[in-house]
Amino acid sequence: MASESGKLWGGRFVGTVDPIMEKFNSSITYDQHLWEVDVQGSKAYSRGLEKAGLLTKTEMDQILQGLDKVAEEWAQGTFKLNPNDEDIHTANERRLKELIGETAGKLHTGRSRNDQVVTDLRLWMRQNCSTLSALLRELIRTMVDRAEAERDILFPGYTHLQRAQPIRWSHWILSGAIAGNPLGVDRELLRAELNFGAITLNSMDATSERDFVAEFLFWASLCMTHLSRMAEDLILYGTKEFNLVQLSDAYSTGSSLMPQKKNPDSLELIRSKAGRVFGRCAGLLMTLKGLPSTYNKDLQEDKEAVFEVSNTMSAVLQVATGVISTLQIHRENMARALSPDMLATDLAYYLVRKGMPFRQAHEASGKAVFMAETKGVALNQLSLQELQTISPLFSGDVSHVWDYGHSVEQYAALGGTARSSVDWQIGQVRALLGAQQA
Amino acid sequence: MASESGKLWGGRFVGTVDPIMEKFNSSITYDQHLWEVDVQGSKAYSRGLEKAGLLTKTEMDQILQGLDKVAEEWAQGTFKLNPNDEDIHTANERRLKELIGETAGKLHTGRSRNDQVVTDLRLWMRQNCSTLSALLRELIRTMVDRAEAERDILFPGYTHLQRAQPIRWSHWILSGAIAGNPLGVDRELLRAELNFGAITLNSMDATSERDFVAEFLFWASLCMTHLSRMAEDLILYGTKEFNLVQLSDAYSTGSSLMPQKKNPDSLELIRSKAGRVFGRCAGLLMTLKGLPSTYNKDLQEDKEAVFEVSNTMSAVLQVATGVISTLQIHRENMARALSPDMLATDLAYYLVRKGMPFRQAHEASGKAVFMAETKGVALNQLSLQELQTISPLFSGDVSHVWDYGHSVEQYAALGGTARSSVDWQIGQVRALLGAQQA
Amino acid sequence: MASESGKLWGGRFVGTVDPIMEKFNSSITYDQHLWEVDVQGSKAYSRGLEKAGLLTKTEMDQILQGLDKVAEEWAQGTFKLNPNDEDIHTANERRLKELIGETAGKLHTGRSRNDQVVTDLRLWMRQNCSTLSALLRELIRTMVDRAEAERDILFPGYTHLQRAQPIRWSHWILSGAIAGNPLGVDRELLRAELNFGAITLNSMDATSERDFVAEFLFWASLCMTHLSRMAEDLILYGTKEFNLVQLSDAYSTGSSLMPQKKNPDSLELIRSKAGRVFGRCAGLLMTLKGLPSTYNKDLQEDKEAVFEVSNTMSAVLQVATGVISTLQIHRENMARALSPDMLATDLAYYLVRKGMPFRQAHEASGKAVFMAETKGVALNQLSLQELQTISPLFSGDVSHVWDYGHSVEQYAALGGTARSSVDWQIGQVRALLGAQQA
Amino acid sequence: MASESGKLWGGRFVGTVDPIMEKFNSSITYDQHLWEVDVQGSKAYSRGLEKAGLLTKTEMDQILQGLDKVAEEWAQGTFKLNPNDEDIHTANERRLKELIGETAGKLHTGRSRNDQVVTDLRLWMRQNCSTLSALLRELIRTMVDRAEAERDILFPGYTHLQRAQPIRWSHWILSGAIAGNPLGVDRELLRAELNFGAITLNSMDATSERDFVAEFLFWASLCMTHLSRMAEDLILYGTKEFNLVQLSDAYSTGSSLMPQKKNPDSLELIRSKAGRVFGRCAGLLMTLKGLPSTYNKDLQEDKEAVFEVSNTMSAVLQVATGVISTLQIHRENMARALSPDMLATDLAYYLVRKGMPFRQAHEASGKAVFMAETKGVALNQLSLQELQTISPLFSGDVSHVWDYGHSVEQYAALGGTARSSVDWQIGQVRALLGAQQA
Repeated sequence: MASESGKLWGGRFVGTVDPIMEKFNSSITYDQHLWEVDVQGSKAYSRGLEKAGLLTKTEMDQILQGLDKVAEEWAQGTFKLNPNDEDIHTANERRLKELIGETAGKLHTGRSRNDQVVTDLRLWMRQNCSTLSALLRELIRTMVDRAEAERDILFPGYTHLQRAQPIRWSHWILSGAIAGNPLGVDRELLRAELNFGAITLNSMDATSERDFVAEFLFWASLCMTHLSRMAEDLILYGTKEFNLVQLSDAYSTGSSLMPQKKNPDSLELIRSKAGRVFGRCAGLLMTLKGLPSTYNKDLQEDKEAVFEVSNTMSAVLQVATGVISTLQIHRENMARALSPDMLATDLAYYLVRKGMPFRQAHEASGKAVFMAETKGVALNQLSLQELQTISPLFSGDVSHVWDYGHSVEQYAALGGTARSSVDWQIGQVRALLGAQQA
Repeated sequence: MASESGKLWGGRFVGTVDPIMEKFNSSITYDQHLWEVDVQGSKAYSRGLEKAGLLTKTEMDQILQGLDKVAEEWAQGTFKLNPNDEDIHTANERRLKELIGETAGKLHTGRSRNDQVVTDLRLWMRQNCSTLSALLRELIRTMVDRAEAERDILFPGYTHLQRAQPIRWSHWILSGAIAGNPLGVDRELLRAELNFGAITLNSMDATSERDFVAEFLFWASLCMTHLSRMAEDLILYGTKEFNLVQLSDAYSTGSSLMPQKKNPDSLELIRSKAGRVFGRCAGLLMTLKGLPSTYNKDLQEDKEAVFEVSNTMSAVLQVATGVISTLQIHRENMARALSPDMLATDLAYYLVRKGMPFRQAHEASGKAVFMAETKGVALNQLSLQELQTISPLFSGDVSHVWDYGHSVEQYAALGGTARSSVDWQIGQVRALLGAQQA
Repeated sequence: MASESGKLWGGRFVGTVDPIMEKFNSSITYDQHLWEVDVQGSKAYSRGLEKAGLLTKTEMDQILQGLDKVAEEWAQGTFKLNPNDEDIHTANERRLKELIGETAGKLHTGRSRNDQVVTDLRLWMRQNCSTLSALLRELIRTMVDRAEAERDILFPGYTHLQRAQPIRWSHWILSGAIAGNPLGVDRELLRAELNFGAITLNSMDATSERDFVAEFLFWASLCMTHLSRMAEDLILYGTKEFNLVQLSDAYSTGSSLMPQKKNPDSLELIRSKAGRVFGRCAGLLMTLKGLPSTYNKDLQEDKEAVFEVSNTMSAVLQVATGVISTLQIHRENMARALSPDMLATDLAYYLVRKGMPFRQAHEASGKAVFMAETKGVALNQLSLQELQTISPLFSGDVSHVWDYGHSVEQYAALGGTARSSVDWQIGQVRALLGAQQA
Repeated sequence: MASESGKLWGGRFVGTVDPIMEKFNSSITYDQHLWEVDVQGSKAYSRGLEKAGLLTKTEMDQILQGLDKVAEEWAQGTFKLNPNDEDIHTANERRLKELIGETAGKLHTGRSRNDQVVTDLRLWMRQNCSTLSALLRELIRTMVDRAEAERDILFPGYTHLQRAQPIRWSHWILSGAIAGNPLGVDRELLRAELNFGAITLNSMDATSERDFVAEFLFWASLCMTHLSRMAEDLILYGTKEFNLVQLSDAYSTGSSLMPQKKNPDSLELIRSKAGRVFGRCAGLLMTLKGLPSTYNKDLQEDKEAVFEVSNTMSAVLQVATGVISTLQIHRENMARALSPDMLATDLAYYLVRKGMPFRQAHEASGKAVFMAETKGVALNQLSLQELQTISPLFSGDVSHVWDYGHSVEQYAALGGTARSSVDWQIGQVRALLGAQQA
C-alpha cells in the first residue's frame, strides 16, 4: 500500500506537483483583495494570543509592527508575491517571517487557515456592504428628490403594459425607490452576521457555513431584479413610440451603422446584470448542495462570487443614480398620453357613488366604452342622453369625471397617487434614509 | 383597423375562446388552496366598505353571512366549481351572488383582482410560515435533546472528509441544529411583511412586488441546502465503511433486487429536494427579471411555487425530525474510529506550550507522524527517545497527550467541543427556541 | 449493535413506518402517467426472458395476457390503487399477481426497479417528444404561412427597441420561426437516446445517468427563452403606443377593474413560463451535482420535472400557435411608423457607392440627421443644396434613397429582408418542416 | 423637448460622459481575447467587399497588410490600447487607420458591430471547442487505458452508497469515461453552428440569437455535473473508511493545522466548479429571458461567461486527467471489501435457475441473509441443511455461488461487468475516440 505518486497512464506533466493543479488550487490571484482585512484579523488574533499567555508582550509588539509593515507594502504597491504564495494568508505570513524572523511562526497558533479565510471574508463584506449601502442610499435619495420636484406631472399608469389610469410621475419614481429597499443592504445580514456582536455558536458550523455569502448574493439578485424592472420601464418610456422620457447622452451610445440612433446602453446593461448576479447566487447554492459538513475546498468558490457581485452592484448603483439624475422627461407627451378611456373606472365609481353595486357599475362603464368605440368618439364625448341609455343614474355632474387632476386626487389613501399621498411617501422614504444613515 | 378575432392561418380551434387558452389562463386548479384566506380577506374588506359608507350595515351583514356560507361549503367539501370559475376570487364571488343576490356585486368596489391575489397569498403565507416554523422548531428541539443525552460520546471530526480531530458526537448534532436556523422561518419576512404591522408604501409597488415570495423561496432554498448537507453526512456515516450510525427501518427501504441491502431513501430524498426547492426560487427570479412595473400576468407563477415549496418543506422537516429521533448510533465504532494520529495537532500544541513557535511545532509534529508511518507504528507508540530526536522539548509528560477525552476538553472556548462548551451551546439553542415560541 | 427502530427522542409517530415518510417516498401520485409504457416495457422484457429460457412459452403468454388486462384496466379507469402501491411498477406487478398468480413473480427476474424506472421514462419521453415536435411544427408552419401571405408589408425593424431600418413584417415572423428551432425537439436526443438504436454502453452509467432528462429540460428552457422574446415583442407591438398588432379576443382578458382594457394575458403567460421551465432544469442539475455514482433515490426528482415541463410546453406551443394564427396586424400603422431617418444608413450607402469610405459616409449621414433635427424637418426634406454642404458627392439621384420599398430590396443577400430573400427563407423553413415530418 | 444632458438632481459626475458609465459600457478588458479572430473575420470580410466591388484590389491589399500588422502587434504584445478603445473591434479599426489611413474606413462597409461581435465569438468558440475536445479525449483515453490494464481487479459496486454487488474496478472507470461524453464537445454545436457550413437563415435572428453560447454553457454544465459525481466517488473511495484509492501527492494538499492530513483538494475543486459553470449558464438564460428581438446591449454578457467557463473547463479536464493517471488503487482493500452478502442476489438467481419465480427467490435469499445475521455468521457460512430449511431447491452446488470472480462473469450482457463485456466497452470507447479524432 506504498504511496507512489508517479503517473501510471497518460498525463502531461513530470515531477512532483502538477503546475496546472497548483494554479487551479491557488486563490492568490483574486484573494489579494483581502490583504487589508487579513492584516487586521491577524493583529486582533495576536492580541488574543498575548492575553492567553501564548505570546509575550515583546513578541506581540514585534508581530504588530511587522504586520503594519506588510500592510504598508500592500498599500504602496511594493508587496512582492512569490510563486509559492498560495493565498493571501500564506503570502502575508511568509512576508512577516522575512521581516521579523521566527516569531512570525507563532502568529497562527491554534488558528486554522479556514478560520482566517472566513474571518477575512466577513470583515471584507462588512466594509463592502457599508459602501454598497451608501451607494444605494444615494440612488434612492436622487429618486426621492426628483419625485418631490416633479409631483405635479401626470402620465398613464400601465398594467400589462396597457394604459390603465392616470397617475403622478412621482408615483412611478417612488414605486422604484421603495422597491429599491430603502432599508439598505440586507440589514439582517449586517446586524446579525457581520457586526460580530455575537460569536458563532459552534466551531464546526463556523468554518463551513456560508449563509452570510449566500444571503448577500441573494440580496444582490433581488435588488438587481428590481433594477432590471425599472430599467425595462425606462427603456420602454424612452422609445419613439412611448416618448415619455429621454436618456442623457452621458448614458447613451450611438450606433456604428445607423447615424440617427441613440441606444439606451446603460439601461440595457443594468437589465442584463440581473442575470449575471443571480447566476453567481445559483452557482454558490449548487456548490453548497450536498457538501459534507465542515470545511471542504469547494467553499473556495465563495470569494470570486462575492467580489464580482460587489463590483457589479457598485457600478450598477452608480450608473443608475446617474441615469435618474440626468433623465429628461417630456411633460407634454406625458399629458398627451392621457385619454378619457383611462377614466372608465372613475365612471364606474361615479355610478357606485349613486348607489349601483360595483360589478354592475363596471359593466355599465364597459358599455359606455364600447358605445364610444362604436361611434368612433372619445369616451368623454358621449352625450348625457347616450349615457342615460346605459343607466338612468347618469346626470349632469358626470362631466366632473373627465378631469385627470381630479381623478388622481381620489387616490388619497396612503400609498395612492394623490398629491398628499405622494408627499407622505416622500416623507416616509426620507425618514428611512435618515434612520439608515444614523 | 376593425378588430377581427377569427383565425387567419392554421390553428386548431373554432369559436370565440380557445379552450386551451382558457385552461392555460386559469389558476383555479391550484389557487383553491386560498379559499379560506380569500373569504377572510373579503370579510375584512366589506367591513372597510361599510366604514367608508359604500355599504350599508344591512348589506355588510348580508355579505358577511354569505361569505360564511361560502366558507362552510369549502370546509365541508360541497363547494361546486363552475367551468367558468377562472380563479378562487371569481369562484367565491360567483357563489356569493348565487347565495345573496346583487349585493354581492358591491363586495369588490374599488378593489382589483390583483389586490385580492396578493393579499390572499400574504395571508396564506403568514399561516403557513407559522406552521413551518413550528415544524422547524420541533426538528431543532429533537436535535438538542439528543445532543444533551449523548454528549459524552466522542467520534472523529472530519474536514475534507478526512479524519481530523476527536470531537463530541453532540458537537456534530449541534452544528446541524445551529445551521437549521433556530431563529425560525425568515423572521424578517414574518415581521416586516406578513404581520401587516405596516401598510405598503406605494400602490404600484404593492401589486407587482413579490419580494415576500422570493424571500420565502430563498429561505427555503438555504434551509434545504443545510439539510442536504446534514443528510449527506448521515448517508456517509451510515455506510458499511463508516458504520457510525444506523437509520431506523421506518426511514429505510429495501432493494427490489438485492436482499441484503437497506437504503437510506429518506436521507437521499431530503438531499434531493434542495434542487427542487432552489429550482422554484430560480424560476421565479427569472420570471421577474425585466418585467415591466405593476401587475403583469407573469406574476401568476408565484403561487404554485409557494405551494409546492411549502409542501416540500413540511414533509422534509417532519421526515428529518423522524430520522434524527430514531437514528441509532454505534458507540463502539465511534470510539474505534479515533486514532492517535488525530492527536497530531495536540502534539504540536504540547510543544507550543513548551515555548516553540507554532509553525515549527506543526513541522515537528509532522515529522513525528512521518516517523510513525515509516516505522509502521501508531503515533503514540513512538518512544520518548524517538520523539526527542525530533525535539529536545519532548519529555515524560507527553504521554498525557494520548487521551481523547483530555483532547476534546481543551476546546473549552465558546463554540468548542469541550463538555462545558457543548452544554453552553445546548443552553443557547434552547433559549432561542424558547424565545421563538413566545 | 442490534437494530432498534423505536424513536429515541421527540418525533410524532408510533409504529414501524412513519406515514409521512411513506408518502414522501412514494411516487405513485405522479408516476401513474407511466402506466402505458410500464406495461409496454414489461411485455418486451418477458419476451426477452422467454428467449433466455427463464420463462416457458406458457408462462410468457400468461404474463402477456395479464399485462394486457392491466393495461385495459388503466385505459378504462378501473385500475384500483392500493395504499401500499409505492410506485407504478409495484402497482402493476401487484395487480398482475392478483390476475395470474405466482407466475407474475417471474416477470422481473434480473431486472431492478431502477432499470424499469429509467426505461419507462425513456419510452414515455420518446412518445412525448414526438407530440411536442408535432406541436412545434404546427406553430412554425402557421408562422411561415403568415410570412408568405404578408410579405409585402413593411414596418420598422428595431434594435435596442429603437427604430432602426425598414424591414418586411414577414422578416420578423421568420426570425421567430427560425429561432423556434425548425429542426424539432432536440433531434440529437431523439436520435441518439430515445430510439434505442444503440444500447447503453455501461450498466452502472445506465441506471444513474439522466442526460436525456437534463437535455430535454434544457431544450425546453432554450425554446421557452425564444418564445419569451417573441411574446415580449408582441406585447410591445400591441401597446397603444406601438399599436402595430392586435391580439384576438380569444387570447386576451378584460380587467376586473378597468372596463377599457384588454390585457395580453396569453403572451404574458408564455413569457412567464420561461422561468418555470428553466427552474426545473436548474433544480435537476443541482440535484445531480456531486451525487455518488449509480442509483440514488435523489434521481426520483426527474419525473415530476419532465411531466410538468412537458405539460407546460404543450400548452405554450398550442396557445402560441393560436395567438399567431389569429393575430391582426395594423398595416396603416406599420406604414406610418416608418420615417425618413430610418433611411440614414441608406444615405450613407449612397455615398459609399459614390466612392466615400464607409466611416466617412456614416459621419456625413450623421451630419445630415443632425441638420434635419436642428431645422426641425424630416431627413428627406433637406434640399440638395443643404446636403451638398455636407458632401459634394450628393446629387439629384439622392431622391431615390427615400423609398422604403427600394430600401428593403437592397437586402437581397440570403437572410436579408428583400422579397427574394424572404421567399428563400420561407422555402428553407418549409423544406426543414417537410424533412422533419418525413 | 430640447435635449439637455446636464444632471438635474444628485449624481456625482460633471462633464458630458460619466466615467463609470464608460467603464461599465466598455468590454475591452475581456474581449481582447478576440483579437486574433477579429482580424481573421475582418480579412475575410474585406475580401468579400472586393468581390462585391466595394473595395478595389489595391485597397483590399492595403487593408489585408494593415490587419496583418495589427495582428503582429497583438502577438508580440506591443499593441497599445487607447482609453477610448471601447471594444476589440474599435481598437483594431482605430489602429488600422493609424497604419494605413482613410482606406481603413471602408473596412466595415455594411457590417454592423453586432455582426462583428457575433462572428468573432463564433470563430473563437470554434477554435476553443476544438481545444477542449482534445483535452476531453485525453481524459477519456487515460481512463480507458487504466480500465484496460486493471480489468481483473474486483471491488464493491455501490448503489445508495450501500455495497451492492461485486464489480470490476474497470467497470467503474468506464462508467465515468462514458458519462464523459466520448463523442466530444457538443458535436451538434460544432457541426451545425460553428463550422459555418450553413449560413444563418435570417438576419434579425443572426445578431440576437445566442443559442450557440447557451448550448456551450449547458454542455459544460452537464459535463461538470458528471465530473462532480466522479470526483465525489473518488473523494469517498479515498477516505480512511473506504480506503480503496489514494490520491497522488501532486493533487493533494496538507493541512495548515493537522500534520497527519492529506486533503483531496483537486477533487473538491473539480466538484465545486459544477456550481460555477452552471451559474454562468443560468445567468445567461436569465439575461435572455424576455429580451426584445434583435440586438440589445444585454447580449454583451455572453462573452465573459464563455471565457470563464472555457478556462474553467480547460483546467478541470487537465487536472482530472492528472488525477486519474496518477491515482493509486489499493487492491487488497478492494478485495477485502467484498463480502458474501453481496452475493445474495446471486443466491436468488441460483434458485431462479432451479425454477423458482424471481420474487419468491428474492424473498428466500432475504431469509438466508436474515438467518446469517441472526446467527452472526457470514452468508456463505450457512450450512446446506440450514439453507434447505428455507427452500428444498438448495443443493450441494450452491457452493459455486460464493465465488466473486464467478459472480461478475455472469454479467456478460453488453454493458455488464464480465471481462468480455468490459473489453467490449473498452473497444467501443476507443472506436469513438478514434472516430472523433478523425
